[in-house]
Amino acid sequence: MSKWFMHPIRVRYQETDKMAVVYHANYINWFEIGRTEWIRQTGLSFRDIEEKGLMFPVVHLEASYLKPAKYDDWITICVRVTEFTKVRLRFEYKVLLGDHALEGTLREELPEATLLTSGSSLHGWINADWKVVALDKKAPELYALLKGLLE
Amino acid sequence: MSKWFMHPIRVRYQETDKMAVVYHANYINWFEIGRTEWIRQTGLSFRDIEEKGLMFPVVHLEASYLKPAKYDDWITICVRVTEFTKVRLRFEYKVLLGDHALEGTLREELPEATLLTSGSSLHGWINADWKVVALDKKAPELYALLKGLLE
Amino acid sequence: MSKWFMHPIRVRYQETDKMAVVYHANYINWFEIGRTEWIRQTGLSFRDIEEKGLMFPVVHLEASYLKPAKYDDWITICVRVTEFTKVRLRFEYKVLLGDHALEGTLREELPEATLLTSGSSLHGWINADWKVVALDKKAPELYALLKGLLE
Amino acid sequence: MSKWFMHPIRVRYQETDKMAVVYHANYINWFEIGRTEWIRQTGLSFRDIEEKGLMFPVVHLEASYLKPAKYDDWITICVRVTEFTKVRLRFEYKVLLGDHALEGTLREELPEATLLTSGSSLHGWINADWKVVALDKKAPELYALLKGLLE
Repeated sequence: MSKWFMHPIRVRYQETDKMAVVYHANYINWFEIGRTEWIRQTGLSFRDIEEKGLMFPVVHLEASYLKPAKYDDWITICVRVTEFTKVRLRFEYKVLLGDHALEGTLREELPEATLLTSGSSLHGWINADWKVVALDKKAPELYALLKGLLE
Repeated sequence: MSKWFMHPIRVRYQETDKMAVVYHANYINWFEIGRTEWIRQTGLSFRDIEEKGLMFPVVHLEASYLKPAKYDDWITICVRVTEFTKVRLRFEYKVLLGDHALEGTLREELPEATLLTSGSSLHGWINADWKVVALDKKAPELYALLKGLLE
Repeated sequence: MSKWFMHPIRVRYQETDKMAVVYHANYINWFEIGRTEWIRQTGLSFRDIEEKGLMFPVVHLEASYLKPAKYDDWITICVRVTEFTKVRLRFEYKVLLGDHALEGTLREELPEATLLTSGSSLHGWINADWKVVALDKKAPELYALLKGLLE
Repeated sequence: MSKWFMHPIRVRYQETDKMAVVYHANYINWFEIGRTEWIRQTGLSFRDIEEKGLMFPVVHLEASYLKPAKYDDWITICVRVTEFTKVRLRFEYKVLLGDHALEGTLREELPEATLLTSGSSLHGWINADWKVVALDKKAPELYALLKGLLE
């Protein structure tokens, strides 16, 4: 299991709805921004991985909504990897109120803060034809790199 | 448990992403469109309910992604209520490829079709101050109406 | 100049913002939905055109906002072609409050209704490599077909 | 006319479409993010202004698209005020490829960079009932503050 990675963003006007809070589907986008940035801090990037003909679409996702985020709030997307095999990858997320990256972007423990949303997503590796692939066969270097990071 | 309600929509260009399929968070919006239309076919409307000072935000959601929808596809959002109490409401969703409302919008069984996504959402009733309310106290007529429909 | 084509849609919850009206950028999406449906009623489709390796991205757009649309409103996107050459295509848009397709989807004159937004977009034809193309050279049948429709 | 204010952001996956570039309506959101941040750097905030019962919705907007932004690109939203009266406010925008805030967020001249999009938006001041207001009457301090900044 990886450390928690912290990625703060500010809530956009467009992300609100007529309840005057963030529309619930937008947290799902934030989860994705979180895993993009998690990957980036390893030295890799989604874009590079896709350019190698590898994608890892969401197979399953789940989210619990505790408190709403509001326009212009700073929120921190906290993300870590909780499962990594040749064929799948699972991320866990916590969305906290406030910017919590100042004291470090990688942490063993989550900071004390108001928890807005938590969730997880499960991903499978596929190639450009949407066929399931085993990462260790299709991209042994990437597999070795992620394995090294996550153990 | 209610019958399945069928609501067909066509995939918008904006709903696609660079993988050339629908971006995964958009299915969460479709679920919401499905429950909006489920309520409408009962003779009620989200808008009217909100104007009475009642909201039922998502407390938990869950989705499984099987196959991707593509630009300009007709898809059918199938929705039914699977739990109804004084304080909560749960919907189940299936997103099918194709327009399956022609043979009727209310069905005991889902039509035979390619299943793209399935999921569920759990909602709690709150008032305009975001306090949890018991529906039978706060809006006895609405409670009686939904109870009648769902039993 | 083509007739006005009418395409009604209902405002989605996600399209609203904390001002409790439709977020202004969403009208730009609606314009695009309007031109997609304008093309469809000619017997062609965006999707087919793109599959031939032709795209016509927006080069310029312009919009005037008169009154806001609200959640769950029916609105009608009215669209017509106001310019058509070998290298460009211009659409004009009016967004009206209410569903105005019942009395016909093609009209010489706009129906009497509350005007919410008006605008226009200019498009250039390009190929899959984003190079400008002359439609009569690249796709003579499509050019002839559109020319026939628009004269 | 104010200086140019630079606000860099990174392109989100969700902002792309099946053409593998940013969907054109998203630039309109970026313009709004730009003016939000322009206001913030003056020491004010949209949120505070709205909480005083003042809004300034878009009355007119216009955009020219030169080159597309792509997933994960850094882009810089450049924004300045080009008109300020008691009843209206106009912003001009340039979206540049790359992050150009490092050498300062306020500039007389735009940096040398690839121009992706340019545009403008015109806004009118209204109160919470959507009635047009004169800013010097409704909020004389805010009017004086902006006037001081913009002259």
